Amino acid sequence: MTINVTVWGENVHERQEEDVRRRYPEGLHGAIAAGLRERLGGNVTVRTATMDEPSHGLTEKVLAETDVMTWWGHAAHEDVSDDVVARVHERVLGGMGLLVLHSGHYSKVFRSLMGTTCTLTWRDAGERELVWTIDPAHPIAAGVPNPLVIEQHETYGEPFGIPTPDELVFISSFTGGEVFRAGCCYRRGKGRVFYFSPGDQKYPIFHHEGVQRVLANAVLWAAPPGGAGEPLRNVHTPITW
Amino acid sequence: MTINVTVWGENVHERQEEDVRRRYPEGLHGAIAAGLRERLGGNVTVRTATMDEPSHGLTEKVLAETDVMTWWGHAAHEDVSDDVVARVHERVLGGMGLLVLHSGHYSKVFRSLMGTTCTLTWRDAGERELVWTIDPAHPIAAGVPNPLVIEQHETYGEPFGIPTPDELVFISSFTGGEVFRAGCCYRRGKGRVFYFSPGDQKYPIFHHEGVQRVLANAVLWAAPPGGAGEPLRNVHTPITW
Amino acid sequence: MTINVTVWGENVHERQEEDVRRRYPEGLHGAIAAGLRERLGGNVTVRTATMDEPSHGLTEKVLAETDVMTWWGHAAHEDVSDDVVARVHERVLGGMGLLVLHSGHYSKVFRSLMGTTCTLTWRDAGERELVWTIDPAHPIAAGVPNPLVIEQHETYGEPFGIPTPDELVFISSFTGGEVFRAGCCYRRGKGRVFYFSPGDQKYPIFHHEGVQRVLANAVLWAAPPGGAGEPLRNVHTPITW
Amino acid sequence: MTINVTVWGENVHERQEEDVRRRYPEGLHGAIAAGLRERLGGNVTVRTATMDEPSHGLTEKVLAETDVMTWWGHAAHEDVSDDVVARVHERVLGGMGLLVLHSGHYSKVFRSLMGTTCTLTWRDAGERELVWTIDPAHPIAAGVPNPLVIEQHETYGEPFGIPTPDELVFISSFTGGEVFRAGCCYRRGKGRVFYFSPGDQKYPIFHHEGVQRVLANAVLWAAPPGGAGEPLRNVHTPITW
Repeated sequence: MTINVTVWGENVHERQEEDVRRRYPEGLHGAIAAGLRERLGGNVTVRTATMDEPSHGLTEKVLAETDVMTWWGHAAHEDVSDDVVARVHERVLGGMGLLVLHSGHYSKVFRSLMGTTCTLTWRDAGERELVWTIDPAHPIAAGVPNPLVIEQHETYGEPFGIPTPDELVFISSFTGGEVFRAGCCYRRGKGRVFYFSPGDQKYPIFHHEGVQRVLANAVLWAAPPGGAGEPLRNVHTPITW
Repeated sequence: MTINVTVWGENVHERQEEDVRRRYPEGLHGAIAAGLRERLGGNVTVRTATMDEPSHGLTEKVLAETDVMTWWGHAAHEDVSDDVVARVHERVLGGMGLLVLHSGHYSKVFRSLMGTTCTLTWRDAGERELVWTIDPAHPIAAGVPNPLVIEQHETYGEPFGIPTPDELVFISSFTGGEVFRAGCCYRRGKGRVFYFSPGDQKYPIFHHEGVQRVLANAVLWAAPPGGAGEPLRNVHTPITW
Repeated sequence: MTINVTVWGENVHERQEEDVRRRYPEGLHGAIAAGLRERLGGNVTVRTATMDEPSHGLTEKVLAETDVMTWWGHAAHEDVSDDVVARVHERVLGGMGLLVLHSGHYSKVFRSLMGTTCTLTWRDAGERELVWTIDPAHPIAAGVPNPLVIEQHETYGEPFGIPTPDELVFISSFTGGEVFRAGCCYRRGKGRVFYFSPGDQKYPIFHHEGVQRVLANAVLWAAPPGGAGEPLRNVHTPITW
Repeated sequence: MTINVTVWGENVHERQEEDVRRRYPEGLHGAIAAGLRERLGGNVTVRTATMDEPSHGLTEKVLAETDVMTWWGHAAHEDVSDDVVARVHERVLGGMGLLVLHSGHYSKVFRSLMGTTCTLTWRDAGERELVWTIDPAHPIAAGVPNPLVIEQHETYGEPFGIPTPDELVFISSFTGGEVFRAGCCYRRGKGRVFYFSPGDQKYPIFHHEGVQRVLANAVLWAAPPGGAGEPLRNVHTPITW
């Protein structure tokens, strides 16, 4: 069965910053989508959506056709419509997979799914990040080098204000010595959520083969068998048996 | 150290329904508060707050003086101010303990802490509920009869739309055969949350010695050592070490 | 890829008790194997092994060819060779899936994988068991009626002396009111372990369509992608990167 | 209530290696015991026991008087009597707290409690270890500097062959870039187990104030309220209610 993936991009840095545009001529979303197409080929149909489109490109129709969504945002979290956030949240609870990338930790949708601050500590010195596999049997780690070496990246540090992950797959370290839970799995309602911390706009992370492998594995892991169900709204169910 | 407890009550059924008033002349919140005072004596200072008070009785001052809050609501979840919900939510993340009781599973504050629908299945036939201890070493189960027998109660059934509890303490069964995860512990931010399902307004649950024992234990479990800290708002922290 | 399943049976009750033989003319292992073949068809190759065979039918060769093993034992746990137990344990840690059934909770291999007593409470009054799905999105629950009704069975009760399951899929109730965590998932090393409580020899549980569905789903869930790896013995690994 | 602590030491390196003896004239066990006495004062009664004593110093009487045990071993894991291991294991399941230190990850008792290989990767280059607090609200992290800086230590690396911790408190990084889950909590039976990785005999780790603070906190966390119960042997319990 083909997995329908919608790659959502905030698409602000790419439009405003020359160096980001040079790094990601098709936008970060474009690079993420290209990586998934290259790694997963005919197993996926990948479309992109961005904040500047009507409904941020996330209409009911688009969501109804989406099995797995990826979310990258940073500069404009607060500009994302609460209605769209609710729509995405309900879809995740209904079974749609969600990959939250890097600064997306602070997006409305991730925070509303986690119920916590989702804050972290950070600094940017372009240091080397090593992404270590904690759970070698986890499908998201399949074929990922251990450690996955990212020559230069922004530093994220603990404490990371999240609930205890249902499955912890990766932990990163940085040249300065910080550590970070870089790959975290959650089951929420009928949906699966995977947070992955590499992916700052100032670095060519999404062109990195190992990162692309992680995201491809995560799409396969998060895809609901038989497709996503109806959105789960907060409706009680009388006992029927 | 004395634990400061604020027992929050929706206080709607008590004002509108004669039979509930007869069962709980001081309101459900009054009965919950009395039970805690009786079981915990000088270890706690218990106050009550209700929805009909200004700010629902939950001003910044009250919250700043609260170590553990209990929450009972049912008829008017949607009438609770979003500002107050945010205030309570932030306090929990900052370390305030929260006990969510029965139909409070569907309160804004519990749903926003869990990130899921928090829906369940239910029917009311006044059947016997047996609350079984799953984790005999858990402090919340100390001195609680196994099973804890509630002669008549509303029936709650699975699936219960919550994240996997960090600790599962009790599972209930009902005469009709339903089961329900009746006692669930969560760690969120610096705070501890305990959900306990017994407590319908149509039954004298909060006069039940065993139920009072559970709530007293849960207050001790949820109380932050050294008192609750500042509310945790969504603020990033630069790495300082 | 075909999944190679080895159904292990103690095969004592069947040889000694006329009524069990009548219920399970091919042994419990025979009925379990037949159910898997019927539900999974060409996706599996199923063989059986029993305690009375050399090495209990679990030679290194058999284990090397097994992706998922099912384990049913009751009367003779202590007669199972420690060497064979160690061999199975190491294979699970290396990636082989393991389904532990009913009284197998008390087998040496399950106890050594859990590290706890694995004790429970029980009585046998031939009461109705209702197996409720707690996690409707879990692949092991796919297509399983909720509740799954078993007209007559032995009663198992909490507390069940196990570590907190990584995923809790089913909870049962019984006519007498007891509850039991009937379907528990664990990740241990590279392997997946699923415990399922229905399956007493005195009742035709393994002929039950719903039970067969659960076991078939569990085989698919526990099967290691790409087949099981080498057994994981306790050997340190020098850092090589 | 005074907490009775038994500090168990293998006491091999101290007797055989001059530099270890110089670092730990009273043995590693002596230093661990001294640190607990200094940090916890009258709240604890601390005794030591070593492998060279009869029953390794862990008679039924000693165990019956122990609320929390700490375990350090490295050179002679296989020489520890299986009977003593079983005795300690049963006591933990009965409620005795257990702190497993550094190379104790590979002790028989820790491996039998975990059910996994408990292997890790390692190298020794005397590098700086930074122990980061992941869960700032956890009682074991109270008053512990973040990061806790250990100037020189052996390097431990992932993957660490353990079940997912019930609570993950600390993650370490090393100068070379490795990461390790340095502080892991488990609930097993009625007992609490805490694994802490700092503590190699070649470095003065147990004289480190921050490390002593962690161990003191862990003793308070692991101590069973009201004292440890009877050892939990594998005995079934008929349903009695």
